[in-house]
Amino acid sequence: MEQQDIFELLVKVQEHTLSPEEALNKLKLSPFEDLGYAKVDHHRSLRQGTCEVIYGAGKTPEQILGIATSMDKHGETNIIITRLSEQTADFLSDKLQLFYDSTSKIGIVNRKINYTASGSIVIATGGTSDIPVAEEAALTAEALGNHVLRLYDVGVSGVQRLFHNMEFITNANVIIAVAGMEGALASIIGGLSDCPVIAVPTSVGYGANFGGLSALLAMLNSCASGVSVVNIDNGFGAGYLASMINHMGGKKS
Amino acid sequence: MEQQDIFELLVKVQEHTLSPEEALNKLKLSPFEDLGYAKVDHHRSLRQGTCEVIYGAGKTPEQILGIATSMDKHGETNIIITRLSEQTADFLSDKLQLFYDSTSKIGIVNRKINYTASGSIVIATGGTSDIPVAEEAALTAEALGNHVLRLYDVGVSGVQRLFHNMEFITNANVIIAVAGMEGALASIIGGLSDCPVIAVPTSVGYGANFGGLSALLAMLNSCASGVSVVNIDNGFGAGYLASMINHMGGKKS
Amino acid sequence: MEQQDIFELLVKVQEHTLSPEEALNKLKLSPFEDLGYAKVDHHRSLRQGTCEVIYGAGKTPEQILGIATSMDKHGETNIIITRLSEQTADFLSDKLQLFYDSTSKIGIVNRKINYTASGSIVIATGGTSDIPVAEEAALTAEALGNHVLRLYDVGVSGVQRLFHNMEFITNANVIIAVAGMEGALASIIGGLSDCPVIAVPTSVGYGANFGGLSALLAMLNSCASGVSVVNIDNGFGAGYLASMINHMGGKKS
Amino acid sequence: MEQQDIFELLVKVQEHTLSPEEALNKLKLSPFEDLGYAKVDHHRSLRQGTCEVIYGAGKTPEQILGIATSMDKHGETNIIITRLSEQTADFLSDKLQLFYDSTSKIGIVNRKINYTASGSIVIATGGTSDIPVAEEAALTAEALGNHVLRLYDVGVSGVQRLFHNMEFITNANVIIAVAGMEGALASIIGGLSDCPVIAVPTSVGYGANFGGLSALLAMLNSCASGVSVVNIDNGFGAGYLASMINHMGGKKS
Amino acid sequence: MEQQDIFELLVKVQEHTLSPEEALNKLKLSPFEDLGYAKVDHHRSLRQGTCEVIYGAGKTPEQILGIATSMDKHGETNIIITRLSEQTADFLSDKLQLFYDSTSKIGIVNRKINYTASGSIVIATGGTSDIPVAEEAALTAEALGNHVLRLYDVGVSGVQRLFHNMEFITNANVIIAVAGMEGALASIIGGLSDCPVIAVPTSVGYGANFGGLSALLAMLNSCASGVSVVNIDNGFGAGYLASMINHMGGKKS
Amino acid sequence: MEQQDIFELLVKVQEHTLSPEEALNKLKLSPFEDLGYAKVDHHRSLRQGTCEVIYGAGKTPEQILGIATSMDKHGETNIIITRLSEQTADFLSDKLQLFYDSTSKIGIVNRKINYTASGSIVIATGGTSDIPVAEEAALTAEALGNHVLRLYDVGVSGVQRLFHNMEFITNANVIIAVAGMEGALASIIGGLSDCPVIAVPTSVGYGANFGGLSALLAMLNSCASGVSVVNIDNGFGAGYLASMINHMGGKKS
Amino acid sequence: MEQQDIFELLVKVQEHTLSPEEALNKLKLSPFEDLGYAKVDHHRSLRQGTCEVIYGAGKTPEQILGIATSMDKHGETNIIITRLSEQTADFLSDKLQLFYDSTSKIGIVNRKINYTASGSIVIATGGTSDIPVAEEAALTAEALGNHVLRLYDVGVSGVQRLFHNMEFITNANVIIAVAGMEGALASIIGGLSDCPVIAVPTSVGYGANFGGLSALLAMLNSCASGVSVVNIDNGFGAGYLASMINHMGGKKS
Amino acid sequence: MEQQDIFELLVKVQEHTLSPEEALNKLKLSPFEDLGYAKVDHHRSLRQGTCEVIYGAGKTPEQILGIATSMDKHGETNIIITRLSEQTADFLSDKLQLFYDSTSKIGIVNRKINYTASGSIVIATGGTSDIPVAEEAALTAEALGNHVLRLYDVGVSGVQRLFHNMEFITNANVIIAVAGMEGALASIIGGLSDCPVIAVPTSVGYGANFGGLSALLAMLNSCASGVSVVNIDNGFGAGYLASMINHMGGKKS
Repeated sequence: MEQQDIFELLVKVQEHTLSPEEALNKLKLSPFEDLGYAKVDHHRSLRQGTCEVIYGAGKTPEQILGIATSMDKHGETNIIITRLSEQTADFLSDKLQLFYDSTSKIGIVNRKINYTASGSIVIATGGTSDIPVAEEAALTAEALGNHVLRLYDVGVSGVQRLFHNMEFITNANVIIAVAGMEGALASIIGGLSDCPVIAVPTSVGYGANFGGLSALLAMLNSCASGVSVVNIDNGFGAGYLASMINHMGGKKS
Repeated sequence: MEQQDIFELLVKVQEHTLSPEEALNKLKLSPFEDLGYAKVDHHRSLRQGTCEVIYGAGKTPEQILGIATSMDKHGETNIIITRLSEQTADFLSDKLQLFYDSTSKIGIVNRKINYTASGSIVIATGGTSDIPVAEEAALTAEALGNHVLRLYDVGVSGVQRLFHNMEFITNANVIIAVAGMEGALASIIGGLSDCPVIAVPTSVGYGANFGGLSALLAMLNSCASGVSVVNIDNGFGAGYLASMINHMGGKKS
Repeated sequence: MEQQDIFELLVKVQEHTLSPEEALNKLKLSPFEDLGYAKVDHHRSLRQGTCEVIYGAGKTPEQILGIATSMDKHGETNIIITRLSEQTADFLSDKLQLFYDSTSKIGIVNRKINYTASGSIVIATGGTSDIPVAEEAALTAEALGNHVLRLYDVGVSGVQRLFHNMEFITNANVIIAVAGMEGALASIIGGLSDCPVIAVPTSVGYGANFGGLSALLAMLNSCASGVSVVNIDNGFGAGYLASMINHMGGKKS
Repeated sequence: MEQQDIFELLVKVQEHTLSPEEALNKLKLSPFEDLGYAKVDHHRSLRQGTCEVIYGAGKTPEQILGIATSMDKHGETNIIITRLSEQTADFLSDKLQLFYDSTSKIGIVNRKINYTASGSIVIATGGTSDIPVAEEAALTAEALGNHVLRLYDVGVSGVQRLFHNMEFITNANVIIAVAGMEGALASIIGGLSDCPVIAVPTSVGYGANFGGLSALLAMLNSCASGVSVVNIDNGFGAGYLASMINHMGGKKS
Repeated sequence: MEQQDIFELLVKVQEHTLSPEEALNKLKLSPFEDLGYAKVDHHRSLRQGTCEVIYGAGKTPEQILGIATSMDKHGETNIIITRLSEQTADFLSDKLQLFYDSTSKIGIVNRKINYTASGSIVIATGGTSDIPVAEEAALTAEALGNHVLRLYDVGVSGVQRLFHNMEFITNANVIIAVAGMEGALASIIGGLSDCPVIAVPTSVGYGANFGGLSALLAMLNSCASGVSVVNIDNGFGAGYLASMINHMGGKKS
Repeated sequence: MEQQDIFELLVKVQEHTLSPEEALNKLKLSPFEDLGYAKVDHHRSLRQGTCEVIYGAGKTPEQILGIATSMDKHGETNIIITRLSEQTADFLSDKLQLFYDSTSKIGIVNRKINYTASGSIVIATGGTSDIPVAEEAALTAEALGNHVLRLYDVGVSGVQRLFHNMEFITNANVIIAVAGMEGALASIIGGLSDCPVIAVPTSVGYGANFGGLSALLAMLNSCASGVSVVNIDNGFGAGYLASMINHMGGKKS
Repeated sequence: MEQQDIFELLVKVQEHTLSPEEALNKLKLSPFEDLGYAKVDHHRSLRQGTCEVIYGAGKTPEQILGIATSMDKHGETNIIITRLSEQTADFLSDKLQLFYDSTSKIGIVNRKINYTASGSIVIATGGTSDIPVAEEAALTAEALGNHVLRLYDVGVSGVQRLFHNMEFITNANVIIAVAGMEGALASIIGGLSDCPVIAVPTSVGYGANFGGLSALLAMLNSCASGVSVVNIDNGFGAGYLASMINHMGGKKS
Repeated sequence: MEQQDIFELLVKVQEHTLSPEEALNKLKLSPFEDLGYAKVDHHRSLRQGTCEVIYGAGKTPEQILGIATSMDKHGETNIIITRLSEQTADFLSDKLQLFYDSTSKIGIVNRKINYTASGSIVIATGGTSDIPVAEEAALTAEALGNHVLRLYDVGVSGVQRLFHNMEFITNANVIIAVAGMEGALASIIGGLSDCPVIAVPTSVGYGANFGGLSALLAMLNSCASGVSVVNIDNGFGAGYLASMINHMGGKKS
């Protein structure tokens, strides 16, 4: 509840069109639906432009269904569920209109693609094994109204593959660089482009990659400017932030 | 050298207004000035909108002077030098027109403030001790043409201080959240705002903060959407990226 | 055996109502029952107010049964078994009166709820996925005689959900803040309340959460006063300590 | 501002004894004094029982003076400044009434000892080298109105020293266990006492103590119940929390 | 495309035997086949002497088949697939001519052993458990045309076993030292030989070996000269590099 | 081959009872049997008093059988195999005379208990869950000819349990302290005893125990003198070393 | 106070030669002298054979003087002070009879060399830079009555240097292996000798040695039997333990 | 002493031109000069082609002088001393013929440049701050007889700078890639070249670079083939290994 709302409320109280008790209730009025195990925020799409996102890991199928159903009843579309197992997806798809991608383990209830940003987001991966994370970003960004251009397997060991796609790099509004192992892709792209680069370290690799730590540290230490980092394997976070930035301006010229 | 340039070059060769030898030279023509210890990129402001930035740590005063002088001779303005010791700043200010801020250890040669973005960047800190990093971000963003609003000491232990400044949070185009210790400021701001939040962990703290690791991990794991992270104490990187995003669109309505 | 007991013993020896040999035996008398694989302490509830707690992980079903049976025979109630697998719970429930909660994997033999503290403990979680750890704390605290108020899914990304429950925060005697990811909940609650806050980091999350390390470090570095931390996922420890504090005084006014 | 205050405000507006504009101002009224580099919270002692604490590290002497002076002008007593260098202490003592302890580097402006809790806090250290951290805890607890009993150098390598002081352990309301190296003191005390134990790992040691990590991990993994942990070397935090707990009830019987 | 090629192209344009449009196309001509999920580099064997290597982990059987088939169609031999599960190997062997070694999980499509280097590579392991990694190196090196001499189980706890094989150590062109646990084998061999030693830490061990970290750090800190290190368990990388070095000169005299 | 052997060899050559060629062969004569995947050292029991020990993890059942059979044929007794799975134990027991303990996963081929040291080794554990590691130590020490006294579940949370067994602590020649979690048992025992204490950290615990790291660091930082540490869960190593020390002298008086 | 003492006490009480009050006092009688900042244990040399050792780091010169003086007054000899700065040594040597070695920073008050063990301790170092730690061990062992044989700079990169000293290795009762970097010396010696090897990792090195972590992990993972480890740079601990073991038996034959 | 030498010795004994005693002495004859604190290996240049290298850190000036003088007396040239402080260099240059480079802190006694390899080594750095490490590699390689080509400040943020030097990359026999921060330079060069690449991570950077860890991990995880890694800041090791490889073959064609 913003300052302007409070002021109008106060005026109504002064004008006796609203009693102090009613005003107090309004000030206390909860925009949350309390399911016991979760408090669903039905005002979020008003307040932040998108509805709540459901982190699927660590929740029971029943809890996920409960939250998604509550949102569905309020008419929410593009309800994103991340890290959704295939088993739970099957369980949900009986009761809700679920889009499910088994590569990225993302589910979207009441999916409606509606392009609301004119520019485009490029999503590049170092290798084929990074695709699941990249698709989580891509499907998120598309659900949030963005054109997405996929540029997969353009990693640093065959850097020519990247240069063959320079025009996409050059024309992007935002770029998401998804890479495991040494994570150098983010720095390379950061050095070649002049738009924000969101780096997503992946846990792809073995040994001294320590579950994605190598790519994470490399990306945080990027000497290219304009690069920032999200959590290891956090495709969703990158797609969400990229959409935010892509909606800020017009198409890049 | 972009595709279009190559095509025009080829046309000139076909038209015999350019010999193959000359064309080859042009294709090879280096935009770098080689100082031996550094290769200064004089095309960067054309290619990426801003000139090169000099990372001051680990360079001798003579090397910094050499690079800055080379850029100065090419007419560059707002040449940013980060992590510049006071001693070296004194040494440089005799030979160049240097702005120096001893709090953030940032130096700017030929500083010219010219607001080129209409929106504003909010820079918030958890505490007073985070100010040096915040000022590195602020002075960087100002040098790159942005209006900056400082919101210092609004950390999570006195979260009311943040709520008293909600209008600034609400109106920002981008927010930079600078915090050490538990780094919760980024999550709080991310949960309250609907614009991109750039989180800067600082090394402020002691013990289990492990040189900024606690804030870094906390920020990477933020459950708020729209948050990305730069390196510990990397005020410059945050200011640069914020400027990039702030220049993407018009003033937020 | 306290100093007073020794003195009385000595007096009896002086008065020849006790021989030196008998006195020595008493001084040596073991309050432990030795099962070979475990030494069960039957004086603990006298000495520390609560009977021994059985850490279920790494013990065979037979060992757990042996220890619990030994305590049961001494008339102990509310014998808590943590990290008890469903399989072992089934095995035990044939032989003992076992309460078992499959969410938190806690078992309680001879459970008897008897409220012995007048104040209340609030248990808050950042998200739905933190509930198993929170329930371990809640069931422990209830078994130890405390009123518990559950406040689940009030994490920092929707901080309004917390503010809608400020009266519970304000009235609590102790608060347990259970959160994974960035663990900021502990700091927020610490900044808003004036009672002890026990922070429980959880392993909920992925990537740079490194099995709960991110939340752990964040909570240890909390800049809010009055916050202390227990081990990752240690709901039991938090519930036990909260009970200890809650039993210290009368209901908070 | 609590619910009751808002209700009274609304009644006044209804009664026309307060205009909507004035009410809005009151709702916005900041309890903070904004010094630019810091926002001093003058309502904290009302809200949380104690005034703000100044973390001295990373602040300039002028900033510390500014904050302390602002609080002094509002009549605050026992203004605690932690990690205060001797040099800055000298600088402050000219302008303010400063108590300073060079062992623990704690400063207290307008120190007034006033015992408000009837029970006592025991502070034990493993060795002599842990005393600076213990004194930070002790002086904090005393400033907050607690009787403190110091039990120094009773560490685990000479565990008899601890048993010779069992009566103090037994009679304490809260115990603070301060230890570096293997940090076993907290577990020993936790196993012997039936009151809350606050464990403070210290950075005392070398090699594989990794700046206090060994004691920190050991304390977090304590198999004794009733133990919680604060940050490495955080004597202040332990003293503050101990005071909170000690003020909850009457003297332990 | 090297400088010489560009010059010849330009000459052709000048001579009107090539139009500017055609020249542009040639300059853009991609040596990659884009499979969507992968961009296969068919020029690599020209450019780097060996064809692309397929990292099997994290790819679907269909993706591996697609990439290998594309290379097979271009006539590539010795197509190495690392970390190939037995299940996927079965799947591939129906469609391609696959050599598969279940110890090292390496697969080689169109395997053709053709010794192109005259010297030999010695591959030594600390113990029997290191053999899978050693075999990955050995089969790689053999596929790339090298004579390989296996010296297994000559680790440091029975260092005499190594000395009984000194002549092989002395005559090698390159040595690959594969060891887990304390990884001392690399240092011992480095101290005894005068050729390059490639150290491969393995994840063999338990406890404080932390997944190979102990051997990795030990090998990086080797005080023997001439030792360099590849990733934990990276037998392939060691075999590839050893082949590169072994092909540099003639047989060691 | 010791110096004396070389001298005798040389005398024989001088005396022409041995040709130089034969002498060279003898100098080269391998005491190893080379199985390809392993080099079995049949001189070890001569050289070091005990035969080789087989580390079972990472070896195939066939490899273990091969090594054990080779040793069996040379008449070795008490051939210890650590980390032996039940499945492989079943496989071996058909072909060899195998003693197998499923708690500690230790197997001993041709087990013959023969007490060769007069003193005794005490093995203490913190809890019941540490018993598997303790039994690995106990069975190793017994196989090597030592009297072993087991003192299980005497950890620090019930330190009285330890004091009730002080006479065993006092009379031991060597003590093995096995503990997970905070690992304080080693320090307590080290402070109470005057004989060497071998500390074995275990991976028992969860969360911030990080696979045994907490106990490991605590034990390394023990402030008690006379304590040394072996790898996490390395019961075998502790039992072996304890036997070595116990065989050094007579029974402790 | 052992069981026998208690019994005799009780007999005296029965015989009325001791009053219960006096007996209680004796049971409580502290063998400690309480200096406030330290509790000096004057019974330790009775109980554990050696007097207390003073860890010099983190203590003020006055505290060290106080403790040492208290022990000196009780007639203690060979009072060891570790990590003693040269400055404090100067301060002490005016008041006490101090032996000081500036290489190892060890001080010994009332040093009296008296060989009480017949066997010898070998102390080997990897390099010259490890000597300060080795000397701490050597001087400790000598003060405790042991013959010490120094074998410095015999590290693994020149392993021949070690073999030239095999007779010392073979004849030792205990060996202390001191090494930084990759710490392989301990494994090599462990593989060659049949006596206990105490490994001391040192912080000698740089980069990925991470303050001694590389040597520490390597030594903990030693595949040689009979090796145990003390803290990084803990020469004292190794010397003390070696003396304990060396005093267990007669001279090795 | 190689096998051939032993055989010749034995023949001489048989021929009675050598007594067994003399032969034994020869077999024992130490090629080391024992200085007490160091054992100087005067046969190393025979055995391994280069004389011993002196690691300057942790040695006293007197020790360094002693070792270097001993080698000088045996006529060694190009005696390399790494990590030599300017102060100690001054001390040495009075007594020995010392070349000293204050950038890389390398000293070379009796420096004699003599090109013994025909190919060349390229040494590339990411930035200007990496030059000290690169120069340690360069001066080492030159002292060992190699042509060195320096390519400084060609890091990944301005990757064009690297492409302008492709011909050097293409023609190198070995490349040393020196980089801090994200360490991507090694991967880029590895992807472009077909010769061995030795990656040297540097500690250049701050924050999450953790003393070079970020570059180290990135380089170990390089997805380019032919890359191996030495310790952080180990320019010497890279230069030495590069020389070894460069001496293996003829000039690359």
